[in-house]
Amino acid sequence: MKISNPSGSGSGSAIPEVVILRLPLYVRILTQLRDEGIEVVSSRELGERLSVTPAQIRKDLSYFGRFGKQGRGYNVNYLVGELRRVLGLDRDWNAAVVGVGRLGRAIISYPGFSPEGFKVVAAFDADPSQVGRQLDVVTVRPMEDLAKAIAEQKIDIGIVAVPAPQAQPVINKLVECGIKAILNYAPVAPQVPGDVRVRNIDPVLGLQTMTYHLKMMKERKGK
Amino acid sequence: MKISNPSGSGSGSAIPEVVILRLPLYVRILTQLRDEGIEVVSSRELGERLSVTPAQIRKDLSYFGRFGKQGRGYNVNYLVGELRRVLGLDRDWNAAVVGVGRLGRAIISYPGFSPEGFKVVAAFDADPSQVGRQLDVVTVRPMEDLAKAIAEQKIDIGIVAVPAPQAQPVINKLVECGIKAILNYAPVAPQVPGDVRVRNIDPVLGLQTMTYHLKMMKERKGK
Repeated sequence: MKISNPSGSGSGSAIPEVVILRLPLYVRILTQLRDEGIEVVSSRELGERLSVTPAQIRKDLSYFGRFGKQGRGYNVNYLVGELRRVLGLDRDWNAAVVGVGRLGRAIISYPGFSPEGFKVVAAFDADPSQVGRQLDVVTVRPMEDLAKAIAEQKIDIGIVAVPAPQAQPVINKLVECGIKAILNYAPVAPQVPGDVRVRNIDPVLGLQTMTYHLKMMKERKGK
Repeated sequence: MKISNPSGSGSGSAIPEVVILRLPLYVRILTQLRDEGIEVVSSRELGERLSVTPAQIRKDLSYFGRFGKQGRGYNVNYLVGELRRVLGLDRDWNAAVVGVGRLGRAIISYPGFSPEGFKVVAAFDADPSQVGRQLDVVTVRPMEDLAKAIAEQKIDIGIVAVPAPQAQPVINKLVECGIKAILNYAPVAPQVPGDVRVRNIDPVLGLQTMTYHLKMMKERKGK
């Protein structure tokens, strides 16, 4: 399958990527509030829960319509429903895991995906000794089946759990098969066409963005 | 231990957080280039590898000194060393894992931390039946030992691998013990004082920031 828009930045919409990145956190907090029985929330309260200014909250939400009334706050139940719809979370999405080592197996049996509508429906590995293995509800298939499975099983998301040196070739293969959304667990910064989204799940990168602050604090304390 | 600067945004430095967040990716790419034997790299080449504009690269790096010479590119080996020093990656950091369920155990035995200088030196669990268990090089200790261990073992980083409902109380406890850097695997948006950094490792949030684009693409294709 050809990449339809390799040069574009992807969405074609006017909503800044940084806003899109915050919305799932809004959904999470609003869902917590709803589950606590809270019916109305102000941008100030939402902002406090998210460590974001109320003005930022109002600006972010204004991209998607008029959710709140001045001085009356947001209807929690309505807002969570609308944001889920905006984000495409009002439906299920099928995912394929590539790589069934320890990490891949942990991902396949991770209990957090399914309740959120993300279904791991296929698993692949380049190692013939892994092929045919039953993991949770999926049977490991050879890499040669990737294109066929993605088309037949309506798979939109690729989850990459291979070692670092194999990550870019696997990602290239997923992109060739038409995958536009990749969750990458390999510790690499993959390169993809402009219409493909990648999210890297990388605990070391997370740690490395905090040591700067730890170092600065220690220097200020004179240690 | 008291929180020394609960209202501040943390670092007190003029370097924007968004720049700090990109630097570990620079370090990773530059390390790859160095390992490939490449001695000099231009901001254009770096930018292509990172999907960032060359102007952005030059601006980001300008916060830390004059690394490159106009038209001559950056010395890879020198730059990677300097950025590691800036980020505090030229030393080891000790971490404690809280929660030794399946996720916590996978974190303790994760092979990616130690080569990068992150050492899991202690593990804690509230479940008495887990206490005393030997996991890799650490022995699981009761939560009551947390403050003592953090002080004695010079632990700077808390890694939270407890279920969602326990996450905020555990994070509060880590903060009380003086921890300023938390890697959180629980699917919650924790609240911490302004001088504490949290990085959330949450694959569902990553997926939820991509479905918006998948949805938009499908809508444009008229499906």
